[in-house]
Order: sequence, then C-alpha cells, then structure tokens
Amino acid sequence: MDIASIVGVVAALAIVFVVQAIDGGHASSILLFAPLLLVFGGAFMAATAGGVLKDALNFPKLLQRAFLAKVTPPTKLVDDIVKLAERARREGLLALEDAVKTVEHQFLKRGLQLAIDGTDPEELHDILHAEVAAKKKADKASMKLLEGMGGYAPTIGIIGTVMGLVHVLENLADPESLGPAISSAFVATLWGVLSANVIWLPLASRLTRLSGIEAEEMELIIDGVLAIQAGSNPRLVAQKLRSLLPPDARKAAEAASTKKAA
Amino acid sequence: MDIASIVGVVAALAIVFVVQAIDGGHASSILLFAPLLLVFGGAFMAATAGGVLKDALNFPKLLQRAFLAKVTPPTKLVDDIVKLAERARREGLLALEDAVKTVEHQFLKRGLQLAIDGTDPEELHDILHAEVAAKKKADKASMKLLEGMGGYAPTIGIIGTVMGLVHVLENLADPESLGPAISSAFVATLWGVLSANVIWLPLASRLTRLSGIEAEEMELIIDGVLAIQAGSNPRLVAQKLRSLLPPDARKAAEAASTKKAA
Amino acid sequence: MDIASIVGVVAALAIVFVVQAIDGGHASSILLFAPLLLVFGGAFMAATAGGVLKDALNFPKLLQRAFLAKVTPPTKLVDDIVKLAERARREGLLALEDAVKTVEHQFLKRGLQLAIDGTDPEELHDILHAEVAAKKKADKASMKLLEGMGGYAPTIGIIGTVMGLVHVLENLADPESLGPAISSAFVATLWGVLSANVIWLPLASRLTRLSGIEAEEMELIIDGVLAIQAGSNPRLVAQKLRSLLPPDARKAAEAASTKKAA
Amino acid sequence: MDIASIVGVVAALAIVFVVQAIDGGHASSILLFAPLLLVFGGAFMAATAGGVLKDALNFPKLLQRAFLAKVTPPTKLVDDIVKLAERARREGLLALEDAVKTVEHQFLKRGLQLAIDGTDPEELHDILHAEVAAKKKADKASMKLLEGMGGYAPTIGIIGTVMGLVHVLENLADPESLGPAISSAFVATLWGVLSANVIWLPLASRLTRLSGIEAEEMELIIDGVLAIQAGSNPRLVAQKLRSLLPPDARKAAEAASTKKAA
Amino acid sequence: MDIASIVGVVAALAIVFVVQAIDGGHASSILLFAPLLLVFGGAFMAATAGGVLKDALNFPKLLQRAFLAKVTPPTKLVDDIVKLAERARREGLLALEDAVKTVEHQFLKRGLQLAIDGTDPEELHDILHAEVAAKKKADKASMKLLEGMGGYAPTIGIIGTVMGLVHVLENLADPESLGPAISSAFVATLWGVLSANVIWLPLASRLTRLSGIEAEEMELIIDGVLAIQAGSNPRLVAQKLRSLLPPDARKAAEAASTKKAA
Repeated sequence: MDIASIVGVVAALAIVFVVQAIDGGHASSILLFAPLLLVFGGAFMAATAGGVLKDALNFPKLLQRAFLAKVTPPTKLVDDIVKLAERARREGLLALEDAVKTVEHQFLKRGLQLAIDGTDPEELHDILHAEVAAKKKADKASMKLLEGMGGYAPTIGIIGTVMGLVHVLENLADPESLGPAISSAFVATLWGVLSANVIWLPLASRLTRLSGIEAEEMELIIDGVLAIQAGSNPRLVAQKLRSLLPPDARKAAEAASTKKAA
Repeated sequence: MDIASIVGVVAALAIVFVVQAIDGGHASSILLFAPLLLVFGGAFMAATAGGVLKDALNFPKLLQRAFLAKVTPPTKLVDDIVKLAERARREGLLALEDAVKTVEHQFLKRGLQLAIDGTDPEELHDILHAEVAAKKKADKASMKLLEGMGGYAPTIGIIGTVMGLVHVLENLADPESLGPAISSAFVATLWGVLSANVIWLPLASRLTRLSGIEAEEMELIIDGVLAIQAGSNPRLVAQKLRSLLPPDARKAAEAASTKKAA
Repeated sequence: MDIASIVGVVAALAIVFVVQAIDGGHASSILLFAPLLLVFGGAFMAATAGGVLKDALNFPKLLQRAFLAKVTPPTKLVDDIVKLAERARREGLLALEDAVKTVEHQFLKRGLQLAIDGTDPEELHDILHAEVAAKKKADKASMKLLEGMGGYAPTIGIIGTVMGLVHVLENLADPESLGPAISSAFVATLWGVLSANVIWLPLASRLTRLSGIEAEEMELIIDGVLAIQAGSNPRLVAQKLRSLLPPDARKAAEAASTKKAA
Repeated sequence: MDIASIVGVVAALAIVFVVQAIDGGHASSILLFAPLLLVFGGAFMAATAGGVLKDALNFPKLLQRAFLAKVTPPTKLVDDIVKLAERARREGLLALEDAVKTVEHQFLKRGLQLAIDGTDPEELHDILHAEVAAKKKADKASMKLLEGMGGYAPTIGIIGTVMGLVHVLENLADPESLGPAISSAFVATLWGVLSANVIWLPLASRLTRLSGIEAEEMELIIDGVLAIQAGSNPRLVAQKLRSLLPPDARKAAEAASTKKAA
Repeated sequence: MDIASIVGVVAALAIVFVVQAIDGGHASSILLFAPLLLVFGGAFMAATAGGVLKDALNFPKLLQRAFLAKVTPPTKLVDDIVKLAERARREGLLALEDAVKTVEHQFLKRGLQLAIDGTDPEELHDILHAEVAAKKKADKASMKLLEGMGGYAPTIGIIGTVMGLVHVLENLADPESLGPAISSAFVATLWGVLSANVIWLPLASRLTRLSGIEAEEMELIIDGVLAIQAGSNPRLVAQKLRSLLPPDARKAAEAASTKKAA
C-alpha cells in the first residue's frame, strides 16, 4: 500500500490544527456543524449533479482507491514477463497454460490467455489497447467527481460566508454578537478552501497519477505479451521493456540484471 | 432516467437553505427580485450574445436533456449487437431487415439499414464516423451556453454588489439603513456564485459526460455494424466490443457471458 | 442576420440599468468619464500592444462581423451542391460553367471554378484545405483582440479602483467626501467587469462560434466539390454531405428529402 | 516597423496617468521607489529563476524584438518566390545562383542555396521543417520569461501590499499616518497589476503573434522552394502559395495578379 | 552549473526584505514560526497526498536538480557526434568501441553501444525513443510535486489568515491587541503567496525547461546515432543535426564550422 495520501492528508490537517493551537485558538471554533454540512454536502451534491448516478455511487470506492492503492515497482513486472518469455521460447507458448494461473496481474493474465488461445497478433493488439483506452476514459470520468468537489467546495464556502455576512448586516443592532457572528461566517470559507486543497484536489491528482502508472504498466504488458507471442529473444524483450520504464527504475533494473548475469 | 442532476441540484439548494435556517436567517432575505433578475437574466443574455440565436433558443431542450437524460448500460447494447451478428451469420445480412425495425437505438438502426442497403464498408465507416464527429461538435457548441452562464454569473453578481455598494457609499448620511443596504448588495454575489456552482457548471459538466457516453456508444455501434457486415464470428465480435466497455461494465459482461455459456 | 449578439448585449446592459433603478440608483452615478476612458481605452490599448497594427485597425470590422453576421442553415447549401452534382452528372462538369456565376457562396464558387478549370483532384483538395486552415488561423488571430480586451478590462478596472483608493486614503481629512470618493473609485471595477463579461468575452466567444460554423461549411463544400469532380452519384453525395451536418439539421434534411422523394 | 506595441503600451500608460490627473491625483503618489523595485525586480527575478541563464540574459533583445519587429506583408514574399520560380523554369535551377545573393529573407536564401547545392528534395524538406520546429520551440521558451513576469507581477504586488498592511497594523498607535501608510501599501498591488496587464502580458502575446507570422512565412517558403526545385509551373506555384495566405491577403494578391494579367 | 534559479530565488527574496526595510519594517514581524510551518508544511503535505510516496521522497533530489543543473551548449554535442561520424565512416562502426568509453553523455554512450552491438536500426530507433518518452513522463510526474506546492501554498496561506481572523473576531474585547493579531493573521497569506511565486512555481517552470532541453538533446543524439549507424556523410550529419538546434545556437555552429573549413 502506498501511504502518500494517508500521510499527506492526515499530516496537513494535523498541521492546521497545531497552528491554530499555537495561535491560541480552539478546534471547536471551526468545527461547526452548519458550515461543515454546507461545504461537504454542497460540494458533493454539486459534483453529483455534474455526472451520472453511477459516478456518485462510486464515491466510497474512489476514496478507498485513492487512499489505499498499492503501487508495485514495475521492475518486478518486467522480470515476470521476461521469465515467461524464456519459458515460452524454451517450451512453446502452450507451456504457459499452467504459469498463467499463478499470474497475479489481471491484465497480464488476460493478455497471455488470449495469446495461448491463438488470437491473431493484430487482433490481440487491438483488443488489449482498446482496454487500456477504455480504462483511461473510465478513470478520467470517475476522477471528475473529486475534481468537481475540489472546484465547488471553495465557492460554496464563499456562499456560506456571504450568507452569514448578509445575516450579520441585517442585525447590526446587537454589537456584542457582531464579532462571533462574522467569525462563524468565515468558517464556511475556511472549510471550503481547506477541504478543496487538503483533501479533494490532492486526491484527484493522486488518482490521475495512479491511473497513469497503471496505464503505463498495461502498455508494458501489451508489448511483453506481443513479444512472447512472437517468440522474441528474452534478452531483447528485457531490453525493450526496460526502455519503457522510468529512468531510475530502468537503471535499477539494468544494475540488477548485470549483477545476475555476473 | 438518470436522476443525478435532479438529486444533486435540489439537494445542494436544500442544503444552502437549511444551513441558512440553522444560522437563524430567512430565505426571504436572499430571495430578492432585483439580484435574481440581474444574475439569471444577465448571465443568460451574456451567454446568448456569445453564440448564435439557435443556441439560445435551444436552452429549454438543453436543460431537459441535462436533467432527464436516460443512461442505459452499454452491456445491453453489446448483447443486442451480438444477437444481430449471430442471426446475420446464420441467415445472411438481409435477414436483419425485419430485426432492424424493432431496434430502439436510432444510430444502430441507421447503421444496420445502410449495411443492408449494400453500402460499401469504407463508405459506411466514413458516413457513421462523420455523424459521430458532427454530434460531438454540436454537443460541444450547445454546451457552451451553460458553460458561458457558469462563467458570467459570478462576475455579473459582483457587478450587482459593486453597484449596490456604490449606491450605499453615495448615501452614507442615513447610518440606520447602511447594514440592510450592504446586505442586499451582497445578495447579488451570493446568487452569482450559487447559480454558477450549483446549477450551470454542474449541468455543463453533466452534458459533457452524457455526450461522452453517447459518443462511446456510437463508436461501439460502428465497430459492431462493420463486424456484422463483414460476417465476423459472433464470439469474436462480443470479445472485441467488450474490450471497448468501461472496466466494470466489461467485467459484468464477461461474468454474464460465462454464466450463460455454462 | 443572426441577432443573438445584438439582443444579448443590449438586453444584458438594460437589465443592469433596470436593476440599478430598482435599487434606487441613477445611471449618472456610474456613467463617469474617467473610469469609462480608463477601462475602454486602456483595455483596447493593452490588447493593441499584444498584436500587430493590422489586428487593431481591424477592430471596427470585427465588431461589425460579431454583431451582424448572417448564419444560413447548411441544409440549403447541401441542396445547392446536390443540384450541382445532378447537373454535372447529367451534362458533364463543363455544364456548370454558367451555374457557377449564380453561386453566392464565394468558397463554393472558387472550388467549382478550380474543378471546371481541370485542376488535379489532389491539388484541388490541398488548395482548398489550405484555405480553410488559413481562414481558421486568421480568425483566431483577429479574435485575440477581443479576448485580450476581455482579459485586460477587469484588471485595468481594478487599477482604477486602487488608484482611487490611494487618492482617498491620502485625503482622509475630509470625511464628508469619503463616501462619494470611494464610490467613484469602485465604478472603474464595475465597468471593467461589466465590459468584459457583457461585451468583450461574449463577442470573442461569438466569433469563435461563427468561425467554427463557417469552417464546417467550407469542409462540407470541399467534400461536395470533390464529389462533383469525381462524378459521384448525387444520392450518395447527399447522404455523405448530410452525415457532416449537426444532428438536428441532418434530421431536418432527411425528412425534407424523404418528403420530396414521396 | 510595426508600431502596435509602442503605441499600445505608451497610450495605455498615458491613459492611466491622465485618469489619475482627472481624479485629482498626482503621479508622484504612485511613483514610489520601494513598490517599483519590488514589482519590477521581484517579477524579473522570479521569472529568471524559472528558466536558464540564457533566457534571462536575452531579456533586452526580447523587449527590442517585441517593440520594434518589422512585419512585411506576405504578398511580397509570394511575388518574390513566383519570380524565382519563373526564372528557374526558364533558365534552370542553377541560374538562381546570382539571384540568391540579393534575397533578403535569410530562410529563403538558405533554402534556395540548399536546393541549388543539389540537396535531395526529401532531405531538404526535413532540414527546413526541422528549422521551423526549432525556431517555434526557441520562441516559445524565450517568450516564457515575459509570460512569467506577467504571472508573477500581480502576486508580488500583493506581497508588497500585505507586507505594508502588516506594518501598518503593528503601528496603529499613530492614527494620523494610517491613511498614507495604507495608501502606499496599495501602490505595490497597483504596479503589480499595471505592469502585468499593460506591459508583460501584451508583450508576451505580441511575441506569440510575431512567432506565428514568421513560422507561417517559413512554411510558405518551404512550399515555394520545394516547388522551385521540382520545376513546377509558376502559375500553379502562385495559386498554391496564395492559398496559404490569410484570406484578406489572398484576396489582395489575387486582385493584384488579375490586374497584372490584364 | 546554470545559476539562474539560485540567483533568481535569492535575489527575489532579498528584494522582498530590502523593500520591507525601506518601508521601516523588520524581518522579524514576518518570520513567524506558525505561518511558516503552516504554509511550508501544509503545502508539502497536500502535494505529497497528490502523488505516490516515491514522488515525495524525491523532493530533495528535485530541489538539487532545479538549483544545480548543468546546461551544456548543444553545439558541443553536435561537434562530438560529427567527430564520431567521421571516425565511423573512416574506420568502421566497430572502431568506435574505444571512443565510446570516453563519451560523457550517458544517453549517447548507450545509443552508440547498442549500435556497435549490432542492434537492428528500427529496434534501436524504438528503444531510444521509448527512453525519451519515459524520461519525459517521469520528469512531468516528479515536477507535479512542485507545481502542486505552488498551487496549494497560497490557498493554505489563506486558510491561516482566515483562521487567524476567526480567532481575532472571537476576542474583540481587547482592542489593544487587535492590530498585531490581524497583522500576524496576514503573515500566513504573505508566505503562501511568496513561497508559491518566488520558489515553487519558478522551480517547477525551471524543471519543465530543463526537461525540454534534455529531451531535445536526446532527440538530437538519436538522429546522430542512427546517422552514424547508417554510415552517413559527416557533412550531411552536421547539417541535419544543426537544423535541430535553436536558431542562435545554429548560427553560432555554422559560423564556427565555416571558420574551421576556411
């Protein structure tokens, strides 16, 4: 599990409350029910209105994925594919039938199965690429919910503040209560800006990052499966797949392979 | 009917008024005629000025589509096409003449009709893709009206507030009325931000989403019609069309097809 | 003439002044010479500085085009081209020599003339497409002036307001005049936001829309001229050109053609 | 020399000071050393930090180019190329050896020289297009400095204002000096917004426009040189090159050519 | 080492403190622990939450690269490749085996090694281009951290200010302390805007610039290695590679080569 989002969100919120305490404030003065309802409820509802029902129902899963996603180093994936390529070259493509069952990566599994089933290479290429494209589109669409919440939350917070100020300005008779009333009016803006910049926008950006990593993995798998199907030289397969890795992962992979070869 | 927009807009507005009530305000203090006229009328007129007359006259239809659009799961569409492919393979393309009459999806109907009429595959491909492109362009153009309203509403609200403040500042002699006067000046900003973020921008984003879903359906139909015309193996057609579905729909479709096969 | 921009701009300005009157203000309190000079003159000069002299000199023509552009339904264009295709098929390409003289659309005229002159189809395709691309670029460049004014006007308005406040703050001795002085400082912001959102940005968006419509017409004409030159079947020409129309225009065109055929 | 930027920037600044004078202010109250240093120095330094040293050292040349660039009508260029095409067709490509020496446009000169040197047409095409691409990239990179200054100036102005307000708020004891102190705090914002919107952003937009015009000229030259090398018919060369011109220049060119032919 | 970022960031910060001193302020009034913790810690944590853990751990390296990157003029690179091309042409590709060991540029080294190892030209092209694409993607992803911090810092600064104002408004009883309390509330906004516009955004823009320069170098190397492998004429290689250089570097390179030839 990649803990960047859990650490980031928790630490950022902790910093906010610590800074408030340093300045002598109390969390209770900003943990008010009305602005929290307005900002969280309003932003979620506005974002819901901007998509289809399925997108909104997908919200808990989306959060779960953003916070708990596992990020495996692609170097392991390259090693797995190269091993499969070696075996396929030695024992033939059909010898992978057993190996496929223990493959964890769902997309690699399906790609290999299609190859073993004798799917035409061009067709295989088209089907797998269509899946990558469909996955990217679906990820982008579901990510819009969080992006929408990040966009709506601050402005809905401003609505709360303006509404509060309107109320205060209509009741100027009681100067005693002016300060606290204006103060609580500003709390809506605070939560609007805070929730957008510390929760929704970072999570949307995280999902974009995860989607990119997964799509790159899938592209790498496609190249690998096609090379296995074509019976390419495993050394060449390794070289080609490594050129698709991010520079630092490539260097690590090359170092490891040199060591192994030695 | 996909109720996301109705639920979202109604719930967001409800939350705003509930929060106002919690804070002790009355809806009557923000439901003022002048700012409502300014913000809704002004934004609509500015957006009208930014397009052609047809776009503005299309406004009621646009709202209707945004709120009431039906979203059918594409899995059903795939099943329908696969059934047609099976029949065409068994009984020949012309046997679909009857089946076409009961097809609900207008684009699928037209595509099949063109195929049955013996249109050249390449021509068929070009005509159907031109329709998808034209549809996307038309959707984008008509969506601009809502996007424009979402962009103009907050700034026109600010115009109302500045105008109100200008008026207040010219009449500082009467301190009693200052509070309520400033208060009502701010109501224009409130409606500008509120209408943009809870109505216009979500609806514009919704229309983009719907247009994307429909265009994907049309692309899927094109692939399906071309495969039927080419007399492809129905099993392959199903596999190919499923690879175009969003991942979750694909999994559901595969699970269903495996069950059926069993 | 498509009146969307005239109606939109006039109605939006009318709403602003009506709302001001409802609130008890007078137009005279915002129709001040200095802020009007600053906002309109400053924005035009800043936008001028951002292009070449020709762009700025083109300003009156640009406004004229934005307000007075004629938008003809493309269905008529398709009918005209189909009629020309029928005649060319019956009587040969050279028979169009006379018909060309009465063609109103300049681009269609030039395209046909090139075809009649015996220009090579590929050359014809390249020349006409180069014209579309050049037209799009020129439209985009000339539209930048309005987009620039829409971007600079609000910030130049803010400059006026800050300048006014600076002046007020230096002369706090006379509290009587404070209110009106601050009030007139805000008028610059008002005109900055108003001119941008009710005039410049809508007109820029309108020009983009018009340019898109005209470019689509030209693309349609290119397909039509090439089909005429190739001596295609007029029924096929009609079908192909209609697939390029926006969905609603396409349906209207098909309905009309079915009626005629009946 | 195209004077749009000189006229635009000077006139916009003049309007600002005239408006200030109309309102009874003095230029001296905004021409303060500290905010000018902060806004101009800070924005330049921040933009410098965002590039490589060469970009920043290029600043004087960049200003010079933005203000003093010459814009020649492309119609003359087309005429020149057509004349060269005529001569090459009559007397052979090598006959251009002399003519090349008097060609002013550097890119046309180099293109012709490569053609005369017998460079392979495809190689010639690749080399010249690579130069256009490199030129576009270099222009874009150098333009970033001005775009950066336009982006940083207003926010650095706000930093000055906030710093001023912080200073004022710490010294509330002396109410006499409050007004002027707040006033001079706002001057930083004024210069930030003013310099960005009247100088940096217009100049950045101007450089983009100039780069576009020059790149179009180069594309036109490439088509011309390749046509000359291929020994095309000068009338066809003229027709093809004119289709690359902006619509108004094309019409002027065609009118001129028709007159000459008559 | 290219010192633009060090000079830019240090000078911009120096200007800020100098201007503060000119206005009579003390650095101590803005160097407050709480807002610094909030703005720097909060922005880093929010940006961390928006990526994967590796991105955040990469932060020190990222800063180091942004500040200390070396930028070598590409003209030297062209000279090196041309020399290698001359030698390869004279003595054969295998003669480069020794020369490769002294090549500094890692990517050139690997490209030559692959060529010497007899990799198929098309395969070589694909592998090297895949590395460029992977490098661009990795740079973009790692740059997002700084871009994120530049986006989050100002809004988190506003959170600090609103929190401070909320605290002030709840404690209006003590008018003495009002000024300093509001003052320190604004310091959070100051650091938010300052850190974003003088540190994070310039550094993000710098990394984009560096990545672009390096990618262009790699593209140039690919063309060079492929030309060497193909045994092209060194004079042609020089001409082709120079056409890929930025215009000013190209001119310098041509001048130098003409001088050498003379």
